[in-house]
Amino acid sequence: MPLVKIHLRKGKGEEYLRLVSEAIHEALVTAVSAPADGKIQIFNQLEPHELLAHPSYSGVDRTDALIIVEVTLNAGRTVEVKRNLYRRIARNLERAVSLRPDDLVVSLVEVSREDWSFGKGLATYAED
Amino acid sequence: MPLVKIHLRKGKGEEYLRLVSEAIHEALVTAVSAPADGKIQIFNQLEPHELLAHPSYSGVDRTDALIIVEVTLNAGRTVEVKRNLYRRIARNLERAVSLRPDDLVVSLVEVSREDWSFGKGLATYAED
Amino acid sequence: MPLVKIHLRKGKGEEYLRLVSEAIHEALVTAVSAPADGKIQIFNQLEPHELLAHPSYSGVDRTDALIIVEVTLNAGRTVEVKRNLYRRIARNLERAVSLRPDDLVVSLVEVSREDWSFGKGLATYAED
Repeated sequence: MPLVKIHLRKGKGEEYLRLVSEAIHEALVTAVSAPADGKIQIFNQLEPHELLAHPSYSGVDRTDALIIVEVTLNAGRTVEVKRNLYRRIARNLERAVSLRPDDLVVSLVEVSREDWSFGKGLATYAED
Repeated sequence: MPLVKIHLRKGKGEEYLRLVSEAIHEALVTAVSAPADGKIQIFNQLEPHELLAHPSYSGVDRTDALIIVEVTLNAGRTVEVKRNLYRRIARNLERAVSLRPDDLVVSLVEVSREDWSFGKGLATYAED
Repeated sequence: MPLVKIHLRKGKGEEYLRLVSEAIHEALVTAVSAPADGKIQIFNQLEPHELLAHPSYSGVDRTDALIIVEVTLNAGRTVEVKRNLYRRIARNLERAVSLRPDDLVVSLVEVSREDWSFGKGLATYAED
């Protein structure tokens, strides 16, 4: 189950957040085989001066609609799988909330199976 | 010294946060030999629509009391040590604030000794 | 392009945040060759009881001015390069906002080149 943190500027309503949540989760399930019932997401809504991003780094055109998605997930996905994930998140967000793909940043952090406890004080993926 | 981020829903008082802080820190000191005087913790209090977690993934029963603990720490702990850490955090939080162990998620991120500066612009664990 | 999260207590104005932002970014560009146009920073302003740090761990004298800088960046920097980064952030923040170097904590998390998408749904550093 990935842990997902979603940073964006304040001003969107709850329905917008709900659609963003679903779009990102579907991409994780489809592209990296995250469990369909394994959603854990944290939204971080920021003032303009709290979220700073260069408007064109890497050849894109960023606006205030920028969404930054941080995903902590188990190591082992290939580069191709990660490419599919980025493509799918971008596609889903464009469909769900008309987010321009230029306004999406994704950052992955890989960890090991024993680095998770999803309840009961157990190492969920590393119990005997 | 681990860096600890604690995500939970808004509505708890400062005393609750203080007890949660102590419970988590004691577990880190006891289970992974974190320095007793090495606490660094950040609390992130969220609206209900900002913290989304599936109610039963991995066979637990999650409520709005959910606490997500992210720990950045030096690599090298064994699976058994990590298991002890999860168990200890769950136990301590149950004793301190009656948190049900089902309402605890822990996510570890391992780094290297040279990835820290705890002041003075020094690589605290990698100076000659 | 590193992803930078900056945690500090509430109460500073926008100009202070702007100076902190510039100071940290210059250090990343100079010390670890981050792209000059590659700034992505998130500020997290906290209540006193939401940001807990031991006042003297590792032999420093911490105050409420504490700034914690989390940097997600590509793996591969040497220990010496990381030392230079810590020194440079501390120096820059002291010059820019008179932050005492004791009041700076830096935490690095290393990732791989394919762990980033900076827009358009592409794996920015791992496209053919």
